[in-house]
Parts: sequence; structure tokens; C-alpha cells
Amino acid sequence: MEKKIDEIDFEKAGGIVPVIVQDNNTHEVLTLAYSNRESLELTRKTGLSWFWSRSRSKLWQKGEESGNTQQVKKILVDCDQDALIYLVEPSGPACHTGERNCFHHSLL
Amino acid sequence: MEKKIDEIDFEKAGGIVPVIVQDNNTHEVLTLAYSNRESLELTRKTGLSWFWSRSRSKLWQKGEESGNTQQVKKILVDCDQDALIYLVEPSGPACHTGERNCFHHSLL
Repeated sequence: MEKKIDEIDFEKAGGIVPVIVQDNNTHEVLTLAYSNRESLELTRKTGLSWFWSRSRSKLWQKGEESGNTQQVKKILVDCDQDALIYLVEPSGPACHTGERNCFHHSLL
Repeated sequence: MEKKIDEIDFEKAGGIVPVIVQDNNTHEVLTLAYSNRESLELTRKTGLSWFWSRSRSKLWQKGEESGNTQQVKKILVDCDQDALIYLVEPSGPACHTGERNCFHHSLL
């Protein structure tokens, strides 16, 4: 089933929703980030992954500085419309540390 | 590298962290839920997936009513310690709708 952007529940977490960024081919989870309505609209418009930075309080596009952009092939919405998956094709590492994904630690 | 529970940044989002629940075998993303320190400790102690419900303000174990529990094989931590992945082996559907996972809608 398809959902419209107006159906996304941004209000539950103060204007943002968590976004799971997942590799469209390998299904590897790359990053957990956040999106507001504006970054979600930019993502749909440009086909590249845009987010909202909680710490810097600004919109950001993955790879805008590093060049490691992510082409967004599909956006999935969960059953209560308060979480998203961006299915992406990354052009480089997802993590600022240079690792392929951000989940490179395990819990002891 | 391994992280300790004391290193998890629960404070950034008021005592909870988002948890991506991912199938350990297929890498399918099943659910996005939340955990606080107590549900994370219960998960490690029992080997089953425990969470914190924001709407009901209580701890919950996946499958405690439906029987569709999830065995947690590994817990991953992201680079800034404010998001987790539970890698699980599910014994049934993850979604309360009966679907295998909660992300069964696409964004129009």
C-alpha cells in the first residue's frame, strides 16, 4: 500500500522521524538518522538522501562535503507511520569514520 | 570494537535509544522500536527482545502476548552510541498486523 507525505506522523517526536538507511542491494543497515518534512521532500525531489541534524539543527545532505552521496531508490513507511527506511545505493562509505556503515561496534 | 552499556547515550533522546530490529539471517528490517537502559539489560539477560513503549510508558517484550518472540543473537551499536541494532531470529511475524515486518508501505 502507498502512503502520502501528509500521513507521516512527524509530531510524535517533535517534527522528526527516525530514518533507517539501508543498502538497496545488500540489505546492510548503513545509518540511523532523522528526517523532518522538508528533508523528506528534498529527498523525493532530488533522489538523494537528505536528513535533519538534531545536533546542528539544520538540513544536511549525505555526501554534500565528502562526496559519498546516496541515491534513494525507494522510501518505506512503517505500520504506524512514524519511522522510515531509505533504500539507497551508496557511492562510498556511510560513516564519517570511513567505515561502510555506522554500526561497527557490538555490545559487550 | 566492543562497547559497554554505560557507553550508550540514552540521554540524547530523554532516556531512550532507537532500536532497529533486523532478521539475523535474511537482513530484513523488521521493526523500529525504542529501548531504555532497563529493557536493554533485560534483553541481554534473557536473550529475548525487550523494548520501552513510548505510548504506553512501559517495558514490553516482543511476543509476550502473541507468542511471536525474537531471540536476540547480537546487539550492534552505532558510531555515536545513540542507536542500536538487535539482530534477531523471529519465531513469527514482527508486525501487530500479522505482516512479517512493519515496513509494508511505500511512500507515494
